[in-house]
Amino acid sequence: MQLAIAEAWRYQFLTYPNPAVGATVVKNNQVLSVEAHKEAGLPHAEVLALKMAYLSKYPTSVLKELESSHEIHEFLILNHNNFFINCEIYVTLEPCNHIGKTPACAMLLESVKIKKVFIGTLDPNKNASGGKQRLLDANIKVEINVCKKKTDQLLLPFLKYQNNSCIFFKIAMREDGSVGDGYITTQASLNLVHEIRTKIDLMIIGGTTVRIDRPTLDSRFANKKKAPNILIYSNSNNFDKTIPLFNQKNRNVNISSSLKCLEENNFIMIEGGHNLLHTLKNEIDYLMLFISHKEKKKNHYKINKDEFQIEYSYYLNEFDEVIFLKKLDDK
Amino acid sequence: MQLAIAEAWRYQFLTYPNPAVGATVVKNNQVLSVEAHKEAGLPHAEVLALKMAYLSKYPTSVLKELESSHEIHEFLILNHNNFFINCEIYVTLEPCNHIGKTPACAMLLESVKIKKVFIGTLDPNKNASGGKQRLLDANIKVEINVCKKKTDQLLLPFLKYQNNSCIFFKIAMREDGSVGDGYITTQASLNLVHEIRTKIDLMIIGGTTVRIDRPTLDSRFANKKKAPNILIYSNSNNFDKTIPLFNQKNRNVNISSSLKCLEENNFIMIEGGHNLLHTLKNEIDYLMLFISHKEKKKNHYKINKDEFQIEYSYYLNEFDEVIFLKKLDDK
Repeated sequence: MQLAIAEAWRYQFLTYPNPAVGATVVKNNQVLSVEAHKEAGLPHAEVLALKMAYLSKYPTSVLKELESSHEIHEFLILNHNNFFINCEIYVTLEPCNHIGKTPACAMLLESVKIKKVFIGTLDPNKNASGGKQRLLDANIKVEINVCKKKTDQLLLPFLKYQNNSCIFFKIAMREDGSVGDGYITTQASLNLVHEIRTKIDLMIIGGTTVRIDRPTLDSRFANKKKAPNILIYSNSNNFDKTIPLFNQKNRNVNISSSLKCLEENNFIMIEGGHNLLHTLKNEIDYLMLFISHKEKKKNHYKINKDEFQIEYSYYLNEFDEVIFLKKLDDK
Repeated sequence: MQLAIAEAWRYQFLTYPNPAVGATVVKNNQVLSVEAHKEAGLPHAEVLALKMAYLSKYPTSVLKELESSHEIHEFLILNHNNFFINCEIYVTLEPCNHIGKTPACAMLLESVKIKKVFIGTLDPNKNASGGKQRLLDANIKVEINVCKKKTDQLLLPFLKYQNNSCIFFKIAMREDGSVGDGYITTQASLNLVHEIRTKIDLMIIGGTTVRIDRPTLDSRFANKKKAPNILIYSNSNNFDKTIPLFNQKNRNVNISSSLKCLEENNFIMIEGGHNLLHTLKNEIDYLMLFISHKEKKKNHYKINKDEFQIEYSYYLNEFDEVIFLKKLDDK
């Protein structure tokens, strides 16, 4: 379940308006697959986890090429060969039991005769729930509330979406808390932020950032480009309107010092630095913090990485980290 | 097994001349206990793990008061009530099969009818090995080489003890690599270092440290005080002999620029800063690095910890850390 939770967090905010969900398939104490729901419209976590578990045994199967939920369901129902009868699946959220964009996961788990289903949180959404009961009716063992505290945490943004309000503040900084002076993080973080920008309903940014950084605020590093609608949170309308920010296709840019928009959009991302965070902190649900450890890694405690290899490290308490390093060339 | 490995590393160097070993007891996919061998003469990891697993079911049992290996063995053999027949145990090292200071662990596992034993590394020590075979002969399922690469790493200091030579350099520094200017780490690290000082055969320290810091180099923060023998690695005999270092009971302090002592002692700790590390780095097997994150934590990226709670964090790559924080007071 821990693996399923970790995988799902990597797609947190990207699955909007769906919940972030992870699933792990285990057979004879061996982990066969760990998957997450990646984007609304793409297969649910359970479907991907069953697919990858099956491919671990039959790597050349045509299943490899199938990507839609319908195709994977159909293939597995017809070709499972009883592969899953000794498999257990851990799912952070109760498998769905309604047929929406994708067929019901509970039905798939029943069809492939999975041995046991471990569920983190029961589905609070009436339309999708009933998965547990369906599995029990099919004589499949079910255990609920597995790592529930953590699966509840994972699910909370979804509950906020459904309540018409999830607002998060994205901030990137160095280890010392400093921001600004060019890109802070590596391309991997930029890619993730741009993907999230394609999902949100509205992006809020401070006037100072627009004036000084003259950002484009598009999603050029995302797979599907879709520049977000923007609110520039500012008292003044005094901006250079020739910068790229104001000239992206298919998006609105408004300038306002009113936060009325917070009530008119479901899923909002605010990007900024310490000042904007301080101003808006009482409006937000989440802070998404990107910390760059670039400087530290470069220095790496003045230990020559060619001479030592890290064997193990752990935190003794909140402050002290203990690292065992092995000398590489034998004395 | 990962839990067993992690627990054992917390006692690395403290079990000298015994190996660091960890054990986890699992029943119906639930972890009942995670224990480690803590000190030569005290119970082996398996014995403690069985004890704590049993106490998880019978918390008021008199077993709680039993601390010696003999007492725990005797109690469990007589009172196991078939509690362990559905339990599996993960042990980083093959359970011992000889009766030394403590009774044989393989015998205990056989007597309590454990269901299955997962072993990391097979015991390379002929006197203690044979545990796997004994378990198999008793019709107990055994799986070997579980996470072997990591259990081998955990065991390596023991192999070096047996080869009459394990030398490690202990250094404490701040995140920026700086040392000196008073205590760097918190009391927890000092306690651990003092415990290790009671185990080693010899401690080596540089002359400059003795002249400037005038340290005592005893083990006053350890449970059993035992000041280590000291070699001051120095060309000169010019030291203030009235400082506490030279006046501890039951220990020798030598001053020498010869490293002959490295061959005459099994388990040696060198304490110092960057200069001594640079001088002696080709003599050592391990570096034990204490990093203080105090400064960073105090600052904590300029985020007010009273206002936010960390929901999840992970490293996107080597440099970028992503942290999801939840606003604590609902907006």
